[in-house]
Amino acid sequence: MPFTPRTQALPATVPFVGPEALERRLGVRFAARLGANESVFGPSPRVLDAIGEAARESWAYGDPEHFELKAALAAHHGLESACFVAGEGIDGLFGLLAQLTLDPGDQVVTSLGAYPTFNYHVTGHGGHLDFVPYREDREDIDALIERMRLTVPKLVYFANPDNPTGSWHDSASVERLMDAVPHGTLLVLDEAYSDLAPASALPPLMPLRPNVLRFRTFSKAYGMAGVRVAYAIGAPDVVKQFDKVRNHFGLSRIAQAGAVAALADQAYLRQTIARIEAARERLAAIARDAGLRPLPSATNFVAIDCGRDGAYARRILELVLAQNVFIRMPGVAPLDRMIRVTVGRDEDLDLFGTALRHAIAQAG
Amino acid sequence: MPFTPRTQALPATVPFVGPEALERRLGVRFAARLGANESVFGPSPRVLDAIGEAARESWAYGDPEHFELKAALAAHHGLESACFVAGEGIDGLFGLLAQLTLDPGDQVVTSLGAYPTFNYHVTGHGGHLDFVPYREDREDIDALIERMRLTVPKLVYFANPDNPTGSWHDSASVERLMDAVPHGTLLVLDEAYSDLAPASALPPLMPLRPNVLRFRTFSKAYGMAGVRVAYAIGAPDVVKQFDKVRNHFGLSRIAQAGAVAALADQAYLRQTIARIEAARERLAAIARDAGLRPLPSATNFVAIDCGRDGAYARRILELVLAQNVFIRMPGVAPLDRMIRVTVGRDEDLDLFGTALRHAIAQAG
Repeated sequence: MPFTPRTQALPATVPFVGPEALERRLGVRFAARLGANESVFGPSPRVLDAIGEAARESWAYGDPEHFELKAALAAHHGLESACFVAGEGIDGLFGLLAQLTLDPGDQVVTSLGAYPTFNYHVTGHGGHLDFVPYREDREDIDALIERMRLTVPKLVYFANPDNPTGSWHDSASVERLMDAVPHGTLLVLDEAYSDLAPASALPPLMPLRPNVLRFRTFSKAYGMAGVRVAYAIGAPDVVKQFDKVRNHFGLSRIAQAGAVAALADQAYLRQTIARIEAARERLAAIARDAGLRPLPSATNFVAIDCGRDGAYARRILELVLAQNVFIRMPGVAPLDRMIRVTVGRDEDLDLFGTALRHAIAQAG
Repeated sequence: MPFTPRTQALPATVPFVGPEALERRLGVRFAARLGANESVFGPSPRVLDAIGEAARESWAYGDPEHFELKAALAAHHGLESACFVAGEGIDGLFGLLAQLTLDPGDQVVTSLGAYPTFNYHVTGHGGHLDFVPYREDREDIDALIERMRLTVPKLVYFANPDNPTGSWHDSASVERLMDAVPHGTLLVLDEAYSDLAPASALPPLMPLRPNVLRFRTFSKAYGMAGVRVAYAIGAPDVVKQFDKVRNHFGLSRIAQAGAVAALADQAYLRQTIARIEAARERLAAIARDAGLRPLPSATNFVAIDCGRDGAYARRILELVLAQNVFIRMPGVAPLDRMIRVTVGRDEDLDLFGTALRHAIAQAG
């Protein structure tokens, strides 16, 4: 076989099993879909209009330079177009970044239990993952700084706000991390949930740092997970490296048009954020009412500490799934004592509340 | 910088400059878009309906297992679902294949002047390209066989029908190539234009061969370039390697739904193919009327031999572009004595015909 030894040694794991796959496996149809940190509130009506219009022109490839999308991003963020690279989700950009930076055996630092798809792409390109534990259910900035000073890895991953805990650090702490990035290391700052974070959690975009890339997405607050557009913000010299390896025509005409329309409707975004915040409060109340501890969240989900070990949380998860409510949980201890529940409409949260109470009663 | 030496050495080339980029550079708006081998006849109306419906559900990620799409492909081709992997265009799948198969310095064989995006991804993963010349404006099967026997490359690329010439080989010849693939080599059989080829050009799909992957797309005859879906057909053991590195959520909900709808409307596909064939005839007649030689084509474009050298063909191309008609040309001698023109509606071809006559008159 022509596959490399590295490929042959790779597991055929999927970072996240999709809800449709779970439905097929369990032979059910979920009544509430609260596990993938999507936004059931959906995209702006203007996005749907733009997609419909783009679909009628979809005989033509999308612009491989993403000119209009990057211009819209530039206007939105007050930066130049050259500071942006767009792609098929943050995941897709992570794959390219791993390709650009990693030789087999190169070190990469992340937190133990943090976003698994980043790890997946690092491993897929032969990188070696070095894990720093969470501290009090948040990423441990001091430990990350110490580790990267010690090992000078190619990449350091840091999510702010964080998935799966929903936690966040304030801007000053993130800047302390940025300041500590050694020469030869790139900080991968995953800000997928930044639209839902308090302003105090987000360091200013300027001045751009040559050793930081910040990743944003239309899949979360913008409600466009099924359209699949994300982007990275960085210094032009860093961003342009992606042009050497990216799938130039990979971002469809439809996705580009949808993202431009989404940026143009900030009023809708603000309205969605308010709905997400209200649902987050309600979700936390549901957890407390069930005798569990909801973690503070600056995202569109709430991590709920089930108060015992990983086996117990998994039992709760399975009992909730068995009631046709899709949720997920962190895969690694000690975070695996939690379940992770995405916000939803009132009717979705009602279903979850009922399912959770039953699950706790059954789990004993 | 954390980028690998290989990355730093890579050129920031784009395999194909998009027509929008050309428009911006030239300060024009093309009146006819006949350069990207798209199908202006567009997708089935059912595809537009399916996209509209999927857009309303686009708050949710697409199924990362592509279950329905693969089931539809399986039914369409009479194979099992496990024989398919779908992705963001054939280009996207080529990137993954290069990742899966190439260690730096590994050999890859292709034809000199064949599809540049394949080369781009090979180079991006450190592969070394070994070129076999075309012979009489077709890929040279005997020379490819000889070269791969000699060097046992990881990959051999062969397009049937071919881009940029539009030529094709008959099924028996392609099977001869398949039979000759050495152990340790994978034949990359690019069949992007297979829907437009005579049946006699396509080897049967069964039995599946462990050393052949066949690539198909919805971007050409199906008229969905702007939706961006393609797939590879191969033995399950080969196909499943992609699951180790692919961007699982990269293929949008919209793209998957669109592709399923496209497969379900074969009547529309047949109608489109008839329109493309008629337009191809007309395009060939336009070339002949202008005193040039159209090459036989089994694709949705016609390569037109301008009868002199590359400089002359480029002059013709630029004079046609200057009349706001977008066409392309092969980049490498001796194919670069041609221009390459995609089929279009009558009004598109009228514009091209006029532009071509003027270009020839001006070029002298």
